[in-house]
Amino acid sequence: VSEIRVIGLEGIPEVSEGNDVAALVAEAAGRAGGLEDGDVVVVTQKIVSKAEGRVLALDEVEPSRFAREISADKDPRQTEVVLREAVRIVRLRPPFVIAETSHGLVCGSAGVDFSNAPEPESAVLLPVDPDASAQALRDRLVALTGRSVGVLVTDSFGRPWRQGTVDVAIGAAGLRVLVDLLGSRDRVGYELQAQIAIADEIASAAELVMGKTRGIPGAIVRGLDVAGSGRGRDLLMPPDRDLFR
Amino acid sequence: VSEIRVIGLEGIPEVSEGNDVAALVAEAAGRAGGLEDGDVVVVTQKIVSKAEGRVLALDEVEPSRFAREISADKDPRQTEVVLREAVRIVRLRPPFVIAETSHGLVCGSAGVDFSNAPEPESAVLLPVDPDASAQALRDRLVALTGRSVGVLVTDSFGRPWRQGTVDVAIGAAGLRVLVDLLGSRDRVGYELQAQIAIADEIASAAELVMGKTRGIPGAIVRGLDVAGSGRGRDLLMPPDRDLFR
Repeated sequence: VSEIRVIGLEGIPEVSEGNDVAALVAEAAGRAGGLEDGDVVVVTQKIVSKAEGRVLALDEVEPSRFAREISADKDPRQTEVVLREAVRIVRLRPPFVIAETSHGLVCGSAGVDFSNAPEPESAVLLPVDPDASAQALRDRLVALTGRSVGVLVTDSFGRPWRQGTVDVAIGAAGLRVLVDLLGSRDRVGYELQAQIAIADEIASAAELVMGKTRGIPGAIVRGLDVAGSGRGRDLLMPPDRDLFR
Repeated sequence: VSEIRVIGLEGIPEVSEGNDVAALVAEAAGRAGGLEDGDVVVVTQKIVSKAEGRVLALDEVEPSRFAREISADKDPRQTEVVLREAVRIVRLRPPFVIAETSHGLVCGSAGVDFSNAPEPESAVLLPVDPDASAQALRDRLVALTGRSVGVLVTDSFGRPWRQGTVDVAIGAAGLRVLVDLLGSRDRVGYELQAQIAIADEIASAAELVMGKTRGIPGAIVRGLDVAGSGRGRDLLMPPDRDLFR
């Protein structure tokens, strides 16, 4: 690979429960010249979650005493939703919660998002199974377009020690997510020991054409040779190797 | 932005101390059609460090008792170099060291790299001041090509909780490194609170065309509108906001 293109999927309307995201993606891709074999289609979890009905109205949420205690100037109903999505609190600096989700993801607010929700008083949760979401989206995209593509479902994560978020892959289908350098050698014969998280790098590349305020919820990354069968969960550090639990 | 291109800088030879990296980049860019105003030129720290003479021969290194103790099956001279580059050990699971460097970067082996070194028995250290390296490279690229470009110096970092490395920006010149969403609002009027680390996303996008075994140490990222004056150090989380010190 010596050149890749990252193409924003423009014109995708606001997504609601039950919408056919693959059809919306295929239409948007059509306006951009159509999908090609080997393309990686990247969509933010937000539209996947909305289509899957993973939206909660805050007026149905009763905050616990603990949620109220740690909410500071934040809406305690938001904190309550975050706590419900968390299986383990990794760091707490009220009102900020960094937590592990049921998927094994470690992220701010347990992946719950209060921006770009369909209505002001609501919360968007992560998909129940982002890898299954990616697989379903891929299957339908292949059926609709006849093209063999990979699919990533992405979200914006903060990182320890570094400012700002970067997009990472939380669900994947039809592509490799890690490139294993183990056993390969550099120019002078030194054996490399690293893996590259290419799915996260693809997610970050896609974010560059999306942008949260521009309303572009997806992108095509073209020119990579990454067909495979990796999963978003393959990107999670196994607990026994995790120095930051 | 609705489309960006990431173009590998091919044909850059092995770099040695004193080499003019900007000239090598300009030549490689010329073979790819030349630089354009607004391009972001991404180069791995490895070639910058080598050009700056930040290479250490291991046979000049005498490991301390502590370095020997924590080296396990690893060369204790390598561990010694890592410890010398560290100002603070963040995690230690022998022989793996995650440390803060003098730059404030937190990374594996304090940023010391034993792969792709000029000779088997050597270590490549991070540049002394990656932002200054990026600035010098930018100044010279502008002088050589007449194009107004941004420059990123990048390295591959592991992350807590996630498998594999992604490339991040450790030095920057001539571009914004963070996009601040603070105060901007989403479609339903919710005030966004995040910053996006676009320089890290650009670094990751560039890595997709480089690849450690393919010997492509740089890339052009074209189509972004990110001219500015951010610094790599702006991407470091201030200690008072860092929940993971």
